Amino acid sequence: MKLVIVGGVAGGASAAARARRLDERAEIVVFERGPDPSFANCGLPYYVGGEIRDRTKLLVTSPEVLKGRYNLDVRTDTEVVGIDRDARTVTARRLADGTTYVQPYDALILAPGAEPLRPSIPGIDLPGVFTLRNLPDVDRIKAAVDRGSRRATLVGAGFIGLELAENLVRRGVETTLVELQDQVLPPLDREMTTPLVEALGAKGVVVRLRESAEAIRAVAGGLAIDLRSGGTIEADLVVLGVGVRPENALAKAAGLEIGQRGGIRVDDRMRTSDPAIFAVGDAVEIRDFVSGAPAQVPLAGPANRQGRIAADNVFGRESRYRGTQGTAIVGFFGHAAAITGASEKALRREGRSYQKIYVHANQHASYYPGARPMTIKLLFEGPSGRILGAQVVGEDGVDNRVNVIATAIQAGMTVFDLEEVELAYAPQFGSAKDAINMAGFVASNVLRGDVRQVHVDELDEQRLLGAAIIDVRTPKEFAAGRIEGAVNIPLEQLRTRIGEVPRDRPVVVHCQVGMRGYMATRILRDAGLDSANLAGGYKTYRLYHPECKL
Amino acid sequence: MKLVIVGGVAGGASAAARARRLDERAEIVVFERGPDPSFANCGLPYYVGGEIRDRTKLLVTSPEVLKGRYNLDVRTDTEVVGIDRDARTVTARRLADGTTYVQPYDALILAPGAEPLRPSIPGIDLPGVFTLRNLPDVDRIKAAVDRGSRRATLVGAGFIGLELAENLVRRGVETTLVELQDQVLPPLDREMTTPLVEALGAKGVVVRLRESAEAIRAVAGGLAIDLRSGGTIEADLVVLGVGVRPENALAKAAGLEIGQRGGIRVDDRMRTSDPAIFAVGDAVEIRDFVSGAPAQVPLAGPANRQGRIAADNVFGRESRYRGTQGTAIVGFFGHAAAITGASEKALRREGRSYQKIYVHANQHASYYPGARPMTIKLLFEGPSGRILGAQVVGEDGVDNRVNVIATAIQAGMTVFDLEEVELAYAPQFGSAKDAINMAGFVASNVLRGDVRQVHVDELDEQRLLGAAIIDVRTPKEFAAGRIEGAVNIPLEQLRTRIGEVPRDRPVVVHCQVGMRGYMATRILRDAGLDSANLAGGYKTYRLYHPECKL
Ligand SMILES: Cc1cc2nc3c(=O)[nH]c(=O)nc-3n(C[C@H](O)[C@H](O)[C@H](O)COP(=O)(O)OP(=O)(O)OC[C@H]3O[C@@H](n4cnc5c(N)ncnc54)[C@H](O)[C@@H]3O)c2cc1C
Ligand SMILES: Cc1cc2nc3c(=O)[nH]c(=O)nc-3n(C[C@H](O)[C@H](O)[C@H](O)COP(=O)(O)OP(=O)(O)OC[C@H]3O[C@@H](n4cnc5c(N)ncnc54)[C@H](O)[C@@H]3O)c2cc1C
Ligand SMILES: CC(C)(COP(=O)(O)OP(=O)(O)OC[C@H]1O[C@@H](n2cnc3c(N)ncnc32)[C@H](O)[C@@H]1OP(=O)(O)O)[C@@H](O)C(=O)NCCC(=O)NCCS
Ligand SMILES: CC(C)(COP(=O)(O)OP(=O)(O)OC[C@H]1O[C@@H](n2cnc3c(N)ncnc32)[C@H](O)[C@@H]1OP(=O)(O)O)[C@@H](O)C(=O)NCCC(=O)NCCS
Repeated sequence: MKLVIVGGVAGGASAAARARRLDERAEIVVFERGPDPSFANCGLPYYVGGEIRDRTKLLVTSPEVLKGRYNLDVRTDTEVVGIDRDARTVTARRLADGTTYVQPYDALILAPGAEPLRPSIPGIDLPGVFTLRNLPDVDRIKAAVDRGSRRATLVGAGFIGLELAENLVRRGVETTLVELQDQVLPPLDREMTTPLVEALGAKGVVVRLRESAEAIRAVAGGLAIDLRSGGTIEADLVVLGVGVRPENALAKAAGLEIGQRGGIRVDDRMRTSDPAIFAVGDAVEIRDFVSGAPAQVPLAGPANRQGRIAADNVFGRESRYRGTQGTAIVGFFGHAAAITGASEKALRREGRSYQKIYVHANQHASYYPGARPMTIKLLFEGPSGRILGAQVVGEDGVDNRVNVIATAIQAGMTVFDLEEVELAYAPQFGSAKDAINMAGFVASNVLRGDVRQVHVDELDEQRLLGAAIIDVRTPKEFAAGRIEGAVNIPLEQLRTRIGEVPRDRPVVVHCQVGMRGYMATRILRDAGLDSANLAGGYKTYRLYHPECKL
Repeated sequence: MKLVIVGGVAGGASAAARARRLDERAEIVVFERGPDPSFANCGLPYYVGGEIRDRTKLLVTSPEVLKGRYNLDVRTDTEVVGIDRDARTVTARRLADGTTYVQPYDALILAPGAEPLRPSIPGIDLPGVFTLRNLPDVDRIKAAVDRGSRRATLVGAGFIGLELAENLVRRGVETTLVELQDQVLPPLDREMTTPLVEALGAKGVVVRLRESAEAIRAVAGGLAIDLRSGGTIEADLVVLGVGVRPENALAKAAGLEIGQRGGIRVDDRMRTSDPAIFAVGDAVEIRDFVSGAPAQVPLAGPANRQGRIAADNVFGRESRYRGTQGTAIVGFFGHAAAITGASEKALRREGRSYQKIYVHANQHASYYPGARPMTIKLLFEGPSGRILGAQVVGEDGVDNRVNVIATAIQAGMTVFDLEEVELAYAPQFGSAKDAINMAGFVASNVLRGDVRQVHVDELDEQRLLGAAIIDVRTPKEFAAGRIEGAVNIPLEQLRTRIGEVPRDRPVVVHCQVGMRGYMATRILRDAGLDSANLAGGYKTYRLYHPECKL
């Protein structure tokens, strides 16, 4: 078996390593255009900030180890420039001297990744304007900071933009984030990003939303970024992080099927439209685990696992990829934000019916020092309760919770299952009723009809219907910050003051996180009043209305 | 509906709170023998150590909140001393004055918990000998430390013993742990506790295994604990943490069915043999989720959820308890140890066939600062791959991994599913192939026949069969510490030195964690040599042989 692999990092190196374990005799040739195979893309931002000091740490394995241990023939600085499907050969070009040669294959795995998008605006090619994909890129960015760049503009507030922001601030660089959308971290739902914007602001990062760079100009002492809104930002350094585009040129030229958004089309065995050619990683179009629709999700875990699956199939094994959930996490300035499965906006886009709940809980027992708040947004389907997606934002324990829900989604679990999951509890690690159980309780209560919810984005509609808003928190909480028009009847007094609750119009109750509000609806229901609970209470209200006091 | 609840802490308070939400009009009376309802049992050890400074933090809710918010009639310092099932009444005794009265019920929930065992040895009632269950207990222990106790002996090295050890050391108390079994943390398998014993030793805790206290004597300046082995330990303070016994006296006297080990028998709706009486928490016998056998598992999460389920059933809801997995975790001295599902010894006891693997991985990307090792032991069933249990030991990320596996067990997932779970990855939080995926890979490889494993506890048998042990690590690793009789052929040289591998006897290969050993078996297999990989490599070997160097 002659196996040729194009791309030697996440998907490619994993496929090669697995291939070797499956077949000791296969001839395995890995072509890598860059100077380094098997490096830590995901660590690059931390090298800029100095959190990772030693550059060699970014080299996960060396060509020597890949040769010595895996007996892989890794050819770096070599680009594959053509595929002859009939002849089953690829043409490789040595970048050092431009010479080319032909390499035959029995099976070919394409793992070329995706390249950073470079919007076609004036000045995009000026010195000082960077993208970040590999070690040469990071060397350039780091060199610019080392040389004394003191002002950076990051175009795009996605995962990489936020990580870079943290790392530039760590280096004392004044940092501005420019983002086209009306939120940072576009895969998440907007309200869930409120704490992130606040965390960025607290560290001095300027966040410019609904904004884009229209042109970049060289000016005295640096660069000027002209914004769509008319303003200009000056910077010494611009990094573009506005997304990636699958590297599909080779596949396209070879006539392989390409998806609508540019990803190489593969089946669940990672096989392209040519049965001898497989493709994996950022370059491919996969199936979204939740929606079943085609999608492109550039993440390292999926790339690694797809590589392993492609190798399995090259050697005739029954190994299938289940689709990508898009489980992702980012940490910066002591905050973490994570997502798995569908977001609310994705569900809306698909026109799919869904329900949602919010839980604000601590990552561990509140009585134990260091308890920090965390918000979970859970999206699910009624009446089955099937979990569709979740987002978790907080300071600690976010990875833990998103992983549990990611596992639950893959298992096809429901919110009723989350009521019963038995998670580890000791004061430092969780709660007797973990935040995950709480999410299960709250969602199940909604599905069982034990409580009717109103969402913050439905409040205006409720107001138009003349709804009374009753705040059942304590007078102190009410005084600190409240929803306009709300009347305060603390839960403790609700039973005796129930006569004050209007019977002639809709009633929305709310508390701080949703729990007392829920209890209030139960009390009101007993008195014949059909009230609704504001989902997630004032804390969720504030996610939508960051201008309000907490 | 008149609902009476006996016991006002984890199971009882949760049942009462849920009951109120289900029925605003129910008369709910909660009897609590102690002075405090709804306190944080699990926080008690941390109050001794001062990690929790404020005693009121241990009071999760006050009787006032339980009255004001939940409209619960909580009667503390009141013990229920009898149940008249025919009359549907309980007799309550006010501890203050010993007076009794009768309280009628339509439904009764028993949540009396379990009491610490007090071995009947001489001196067990001496001043200075304590158990730890509630606030009065912790007040006594803390007072003893505050008064200047400088030497403590903890009898029993279970979860509470280890937490207390940490907290006493924090207070500068010289601490000795005496444990009857040959390991600390008896629910875990012995080899997994090796790092824990080392962590205790590193902080100066003396661990005496296979040892028990035969008698306690008052001596000048303190207590003397006479050990079974003949020795004596002196201490100012003795805390017994040797397990708990269900408080079944009331239930027994009322003629309710009691399980073999003393737990009140309940069905999956938490209903006792009397349909008007439910029981929850530490007092009951539940079904082990994995084995299906009756078991008693005193944990707060299950107690809380059982309380909720019992309340549901009191009000006619269809709500069933799925059994207890025994997911538990303990943290001390910067180490954490967790378990979910069956242990190997439990599976052996049941005579159940199982397979196991070990993974030694970092909690997050190795290239990111702060990467710390973690060991996962995974138990599963062949050929289905169904996960039966797991243990995780490490410094960080332990809760995360045990929660994922706990969820997977509840979902009935297999090790093949773990290969594919899509967990959150960014350098601070995980790895592109998370430790959980790795566990899935390793276990699946075993089940698919891609590698044959030998376990450390089978090595002697292999030696008797004349097996050659080949260490495929580097010469440096080999020099640092090795398995007796092993011959070093580094993986990198195996292909060229394959002639040195004996063909006339069994071959066991091993490396540091199992991965290179696995690769070696693949290389040898290709050369027609059926070798076995030592599961988990030298690191697992060391768990069994702590005397060896690492
Ligand atoms: C800065 C940064 C941070 C990231 N952080 C995270 C994170 O925290 N978590 C996460 O899950 N993901 C993260 N990612 C994404 C993750 O790195 C990618 O999803 C993953 O590397 C994709 O793997 P791949 O094998 O498809 O492509 P890559 O890893 O990009 O590898 C493709 C390789 O193919 C080579 N190549 C392309 N065409 C050819 C050709 N014709 N001939 C020869 N070689 C070719 C390229 O040079 C490239 O090195 C991050 C990415 C970046 C850039
Ligand atoms: C020090 C300590 C640390 C712990 N740490 C953890 C941990 O980290 N994680 C974990 O999961 N679990 C932990 N546990 C165990 C956990 O606290 C119990 O599993 C849980 O509290 C059991 O709940 P329960 O309602 O059954 O019993 P309890 O919470 O013990 O409540 C029972 C109550 O009933 C009262 N009672 C009994 N009989 C009567 C009667 N006849 N009349 C009136 N009242 C009565 C008792 O006074 C008692 O307060 C710990 C326990 C202790 C003691
Ligand atoms: C304090 C105590 C009485 C609270 O019981 P509780 O009222 O059930 O309250 P919890 O804080 O557990 O909240 C759970 C309830 O709030 C609801 N809730 C939580 N967050 C919510 C939100 N954001 N929106 C709506 N409802 C919410 C849940 O649905 C659940 O109600 P349900 O059971 O009717 O579904 C009880 O847990 C207790 O005594 N605990 C301390 C003792 C103990 O557990 N010790 C051992 C561990 S140290
Ligand atoms: C370094 C690299 C080549 C390693 O690939 P790999 O050989 O598959 O090695 P991994 O470290 O992932 O280990 C996985 C293998 O070891 C085996 N293994 C791990 N621990 C084991 C143990 N304790 N016992 C036995 N086998 C073990 C696994 O079963 C798996 O083998 P399999 O796929 O045949 O089942 C590849 O992952 C890579 O290039 N990574 C860096 C690039 C990257 O991923 N970038 C994006 C993220 S920053």
